[in-house]
Order: sequence, then C-alpha cells, then structure tokens
Amino acid sequence: MNIEQFVAQSEGKWRSMRSGHSLAFQQFEEVLSEVNIERVEQTDQQIQSLLDSSSLDSSASIASPFRMSWAAESDWEPDDPNEVSSGACLIVPVPSNESTGRLLRSVGYAEAAPAESEYSFLSDGTFILQTQYEQSIAEERIWFVSDHVRCRSSVLRTSAGSGILQTSFASEVRRLNS
Amino acid sequence: MNIEQFVAQSEGKWRSMRSGHSLAFQQFEEVLSEVNIERVEQTDQQIQSLLDSSSLDSSASIASPFRMSWAAESDWEPDDPNEVSSGACLIVPVPSNESTGRLLRSVGYAEAAPAESEYSFLSDGTFILQTQYEQSIAEERIWFVSDHVRCRSSVLRTSAGSGILQTSFASEVRRLNS
Repeated sequence: MNIEQFVAQSEGKWRSMRSGHSLAFQQFEEVLSEVNIERVEQTDQQIQSLLDSSSLDSSASIASPFRMSWAAESDWEPDDPNEVSSGACLIVPVPSNESTGRLLRSVGYAEAAPAESEYSFLSDGTFILQTQYEQSIAEERIWFVSDHVRCRSSVLRTSAGSGILQTSFASEVRRLNS
Repeated sequence: MNIEQFVAQSEGKWRSMRSGHSLAFQQFEEVLSEVNIERVEQTDQQIQSLLDSSSLDSSASIASPFRMSWAAESDWEPDDPNEVSSGACLIVPVPSNESTGRLLRSVGYAEAAPAESEYSFLSDGTFILQTQYEQSIAEERIWFVSDHVRCRSSVLRTSAGSGILQTSFASEVRRLNS
C-alpha cells in the first residue's frame, strides 16, 4: 500500500459511527456523522500556502492531496443532543518514500491548528498517522476491512508522559447511492 | 513480538470500555467490564482435552496457555440495564513459527462453541486473530499503546459474502492496585 492507493480507496462519502472513550472518567461518547473525502487539484492555491507555512521545503513533492469534510450529530452535550458539528480540512501528503512520509493538515484533529504528522503503513496496509500537538500526541490508524468498510482508531496521549487521555474508534461504511 | 511475549504483556486484570457498532442498524452498544488474564500450567488437564477435540495433532507443541475471564455490565438489553454477563475460556496457542500459529479456545467469541483461530503479528507487533465460525468470520486485532493500555478491535463478517455485520472496539486499562 502506498499513499496514492490509500487516498484512492478512501475517496467518497462515508457514513461514520464513532465511539469515544474517555479513560480517566470511563465515559463513552457516540457520534454519527457523514464524512466526505474528495481529491483536490495539485495546483490548488491553498496547498502552496499550507506548504509555505509548514516546516517542510516549500518545493517539496506532494502526492494525492484531498479535502475531508464532516458533519456530525453528537450526544456529547447533554443540553443540546441535536447540536451538529461540522468542519473541513485540506490534507496534503508529502511522501519520503513508498511507505512513509509527512502529512500536512490545515486543521488538526486534537487541537484546532494546522498540524504536521508522520505517516507509515504496516505490513498489512494499515495506515498509521502520528501527530505531535503542543499538549498531546495523537496516533491514528486506518484499515480497510472490505472495499466499502474501513475502521479508524485514535489514541491521544499527553506529550509530557505516557498517560493515555482518550481513545476512539470509527466504523465507516461507504455511501454507494448518493 | 511473539506469542509468549504477547501473553506475558497481557497477563493481569484489565478494566475494559467496549463499544459495539451494529452497522446495518447503526446501533451503538456500550459495555464496561473487567477482564482477567491468567497463565495456566501446561500440564492442565483441560488443555489436553481441547487439543484432543481439535483438528490439530494432539501432541502439537503449545505455548503460554492462559485463561481469560470477564464480567460485564451491559446496556444492550433495555429491559434490564444492570444485567451482568460473565464468562471464562481457556486459550491455547499452538505456534507454527515465531510470528504465526493456531489458537484454540474452549468457548468462541461470536458463537458459543470451541473455536480454532489463526494468529499472526503485524510489523509493529499488532496481534491479529482470524476465526472461521459456522455462520461468520471474526477478525480481532489487539495492540498495546503503552505497557498498561491496550486496544482491541473486532470485525464480524458473514462467511458467505463480504458483508460486515458488526464491529467493536475496546480500550483496556490495567488495574495496578488490585
């Protein structure tokens, strides 16, 4: 598996069931959402801005940039069970070689600022993404269990120690008829 | 990672938060449970019975047999939110080589009958377990995110086709003071 194949397989609309586990408080979160993954032209102006503001060489070779957007209905807020949260970010892979590289995101996952991650693939094609934020380190893994179903897990730990703050798991099913 | 190291790392008492996703119905399940993993003597009589009733040679070399027990409090049954389900099974690894082998279980995960699985390790030490049941195929993966936190996911698919029935994810934290 390389990043181009991974992005190609990920393109489309996904219906996501996501569970969050807050380990210290033993609390569960459940979120249903729709995730949309679309390729972006390599010449898109935002890509160059993201590269320019990153720690990477602004002429670095990129591969398969895409935009991910999501719209969620969460049960996390007891006062407003129907609150819809949504967002979008631009994601730009910068391969180092066939199986590893860096990944730039216009909005981070754990903290809402641009993020730089390192990615790699395990022996079975599982995609691994590690992101160092100011206060935390996130590890995400994504693997396809069929052409149209993928799983996504995340672990968030404190950057100071080895404390695990929370984990999450999403089951994502491709929407074929929309 | 080999099976002896994996079992050694898994031994102990774990507090588990588990989320189940029923994909067709988009239903979430949440279960809090305690999982206990204890080594069993290689000479335990039950081990030989399990081997004898398996498809393997009854003199096959085993490694690190253990007993897993669990006690869960589930929200799955709306009529009885405090129903406690519990169980135990004997698990007997039969390595083929350093990184793959078979695994016998006295009680299966998806169907309550003895089960034979194939296991292997990914390049980062993630443990992969595949079990063929009569009506379904289960794939479980277990990986340590620190010495005292491990993640466990499962995917259940129909054995006839590629339909994914359900997935689950557990975050397990070692109980150090008990």
